[in-house]
Amino acid sequence: MNHSGSDTWDLIVLGAGAVGENVADYATKGGLRTVIVEAQLVGGECSYWACMPSKALLRPAAARLAVQRVAGASAAVTGDLDVAAVLERRTGFTSAWDDANQVSWLDSAGIDLVRGRGRIVGERTVDVAQADGTVRRLTATHAVAVCTGSVPTLPPIEGLADAKPWTSREATSITDVPGSVAILGGGVVAAELATIYRSLGAEVTVILRGRFLSRFEDFASDRVRASLEESGVHFVTASPSSVTRAQDGRVHITLGHNVEPIIVDEIIVATGRHSATTGLGLEDVGVSPTDLRVDDSMRVAGAHGDWLYAVGDVNGRALYTHQGKYQARAAGLAIAARAASTLPSDLTEPWSDHAATADHAHVPSVVFTEPEIATVGLTSEEADQAGLPIRVIDHDLGSVAGAAVRSDGYAGAVRAVIDLERQLIVGMTFVGQDVSELLHAATIAIVGEVPLDRLWHAVPAYPTMNEVWLRLLEAERYA
Amino acid sequence: MNHSGSDTWDLIVLGAGAVGENVADYATKGGLRTVIVEAQLVGGECSYWACMPSKALLRPAAARLAVQRVAGASAAVTGDLDVAAVLERRTGFTSAWDDANQVSWLDSAGIDLVRGRGRIVGERTVDVAQADGTVRRLTATHAVAVCTGSVPTLPPIEGLADAKPWTSREATSITDVPGSVAILGGGVVAAELATIYRSLGAEVTVILRGRFLSRFEDFASDRVRASLEESGVHFVTASPSSVTRAQDGRVHITLGHNVEPIIVDEIIVATGRHSATTGLGLEDVGVSPTDLRVDDSMRVAGAHGDWLYAVGDVNGRALYTHQGKYQARAAGLAIAARAASTLPSDLTEPWSDHAATADHAHVPSVVFTEPEIATVGLTSEEADQAGLPIRVIDHDLGSVAGAAVRSDGYAGAVRAVIDLERQLIVGMTFVGQDVSELLHAATIAIVGEVPLDRLWHAVPAYPTMNEVWLRLLEAERYA
Repeated sequence: MNHSGSDTWDLIVLGAGAVGENVADYATKGGLRTVIVEAQLVGGECSYWACMPSKALLRPAAARLAVQRVAGASAAVTGDLDVAAVLERRTGFTSAWDDANQVSWLDSAGIDLVRGRGRIVGERTVDVAQADGTVRRLTATHAVAVCTGSVPTLPPIEGLADAKPWTSREATSITDVPGSVAILGGGVVAAELATIYRSLGAEVTVILRGRFLSRFEDFASDRVRASLEESGVHFVTASPSSVTRAQDGRVHITLGHNVEPIIVDEIIVATGRHSATTGLGLEDVGVSPTDLRVDDSMRVAGAHGDWLYAVGDVNGRALYTHQGKYQARAAGLAIAARAASTLPSDLTEPWSDHAATADHAHVPSVVFTEPEIATVGLTSEEADQAGLPIRVIDHDLGSVAGAAVRSDGYAGAVRAVIDLERQLIVGMTFVGQDVSELLHAATIAIVGEVPLDRLWHAVPAYPTMNEVWLRLLEAERYA
Repeated sequence: MNHSGSDTWDLIVLGAGAVGENVADYATKGGLRTVIVEAQLVGGECSYWACMPSKALLRPAAARLAVQRVAGASAAVTGDLDVAAVLERRTGFTSAWDDANQVSWLDSAGIDLVRGRGRIVGERTVDVAQADGTVRRLTATHAVAVCTGSVPTLPPIEGLADAKPWTSREATSITDVPGSVAILGGGVVAAELATIYRSLGAEVTVILRGRFLSRFEDFASDRVRASLEESGVHFVTASPSSVTRAQDGRVHITLGHNVEPIIVDEIIVATGRHSATTGLGLEDVGVSPTDLRVDDSMRVAGAHGDWLYAVGDVNGRALYTHQGKYQARAAGLAIAARAASTLPSDLTEPWSDHAATADHAHVPSVVFTEPEIATVGLTSEEADQAGLPIRVIDHDLGSVAGAAVRSDGYAGAVRAVIDLERQLIVGMTFVGQDVSELLHAATIAIVGEVPLDRLWHAVPAYPTMNEVWLRLLEAERYA
């Protein structure tokens, strides 16, 4: 423990994932003495069991596929992926699940660390159950920020919990690739894990109830599903009635009385996540652990004295690492500003440094499948439901010279959702190979509220895939 | 010839490259009857002898290199590029130098075509020397737009012209790869051709006088040069005194009295380009063919009656296909608006549809080398010279998680040039693998004049390379 004197800091942060680290960092830069409490690895879910390992696992197959699509280079690729090397690459990106580097970073950033499980026991007071069995009491002069993230939700299927299902944690930590997996769920985690496991040679069955990747524009989700099916992934629309792990170790998934059960080596649950608030003691300070509501500075509604913040996945606003870090910047700056009395407790100006305004209708997300989906802002359906006077402009990405050069027979599409009244783009969705890096242009256009008639002067370099911007603006002009 | 009646149109366009096609298209959509005059292939330099073939030739090596940098996938690449297939891919992208598709497009766009060499013989009057030896006179009711592009400049080196040097045309049209080439010049064309020829197995020597890629930020140019050198390209800083093609067909390049001559199979001249105005008759209407000055609607200064426009490379404003097309949109819309008397002849409002305002300080460009350079707006040197109160923010692109995931040991860098007074980014330069598609976000931020405090809310998706935006903004905040 690095601090001296009493166990009092200006700010106590619960959870040392990317979000907690950023709250602590921004508050510390703002002059506050900050401590972070973590029971597991410093660095959190994203570093060890989510974004980093999954993206490290996805990239080799994507790179190999990209070169196979370029005449003149494709013949150079004669081999398969080296599965052991892919897994080793993944292990490198997780630092072999060792948090020494992240601990060093905390130290260099001037943030104290207390290892153990934190529980709020009163206003600005946290008890930490430490590994040695002792409890250490921490007090904060200004604020406590809950940054404990989220945990996978296990659906209420008979036998599932006892069948030792994998969550995204186990699924991204494998040391051997099972021969077959069933993935429960049809969201982003299911889509990325299906892509990974299929690319590593497993038989993959996705069991889902509704539409695949239903949060996204249909044209994008449909292409990803078709591509997965083409690669050999099976899709089954069903609600399992029971799951059991048999004596031989295999998992039997019963879908109904007259349906053959699905038998696989492992079952992966990817049916959503919920706030990780169990045991935090929120009830004791008058806050519902299942309904954490925050304002745009991430301050929890209902806590007496305005000292409690909830940042990142735990508040349920937008379950993405990047958006959690964004909230963390706003919260860290707001906590420091309120401690310095330069920010009123009840006010956060939209688009100010202290407000995560973009959470509401400006959230970017990428699905690292093949093809990739990248989207920001409102889908056409969401814009419609919001009552905006919209025009939807679609364009075939493959018809853009930059895409054709990148990949023979490039297949992709882009949709822009335009608010006709304000003459602004309010949503954009891309689907295709390598579209993940196209997204930020859309994010800047939407968040920056750059009018269409000014976007007209933002010339895309030729021949890049970004020339699709010109095509969309031309289509809008001559619609 | 598709038109009926007399040889009179509203607009005559000289040159059917991408720029001429766009002027004609926008004017036609604006209600004007338009004819385009072309002596060579409809589609122009970019389609057949520049952007398209060069990018088609560059992509296979880039794709192969990308996969070689990803552990788990690299072992799958055992072979070299298939040079014949690379050349065939190139030929596909040039439609085997057949313009039938482009002619069909003109037809579908309602644009008439007259094949032959056009010469301005008076106000709104063009004589076309046709292949059959006849001359056809065309007259325009409103305007003539010169879109004849540019041609390579041959430096005044003794013997060079007689040594049958290649220009970018011959260099991108090869059917066999020479064993060795010397490239005269150190600009973008030289850099891309050196990359292509080296990747196809040729010995490459770049002979340049000044700094390599001198228009770009040093940190970017230096990386490209180092990478080319590492791949085996030789750089020689010298001014050849003479060039001769010997009896055996090889080219001898003499650099000075006491220096061994360079002997190569072919010499490629890439020492710049100048306006293609020879024989256009500009002198006859009082316009200097070597000093074509235009306003922001591309109207030529000095032509009596304001009927003459010069669009694209020919006006020397910004020699890029994308920027020429941008000018073409402004010019086509301006010509149509002036014909309809809805736009004053002497006025083009900045950032309006009729002004190519972005030409001045908002031009994007990409160098498709390995690594790529992508830049938009002002370099730090240009901003300094313009007297702006700037801060330069640099960031290592390889330290961004999205880059590390993309490529093991990713090497790259980004610079943002910030106008401290206006709190805007005025220039950005990226260097690294696959940065070409990162550029448009910068172009939108700069052209859209999105203030730094709003860019703060444009969240880059994690983990993408675009997260470098966050790092730059954090560095700026805590500089």
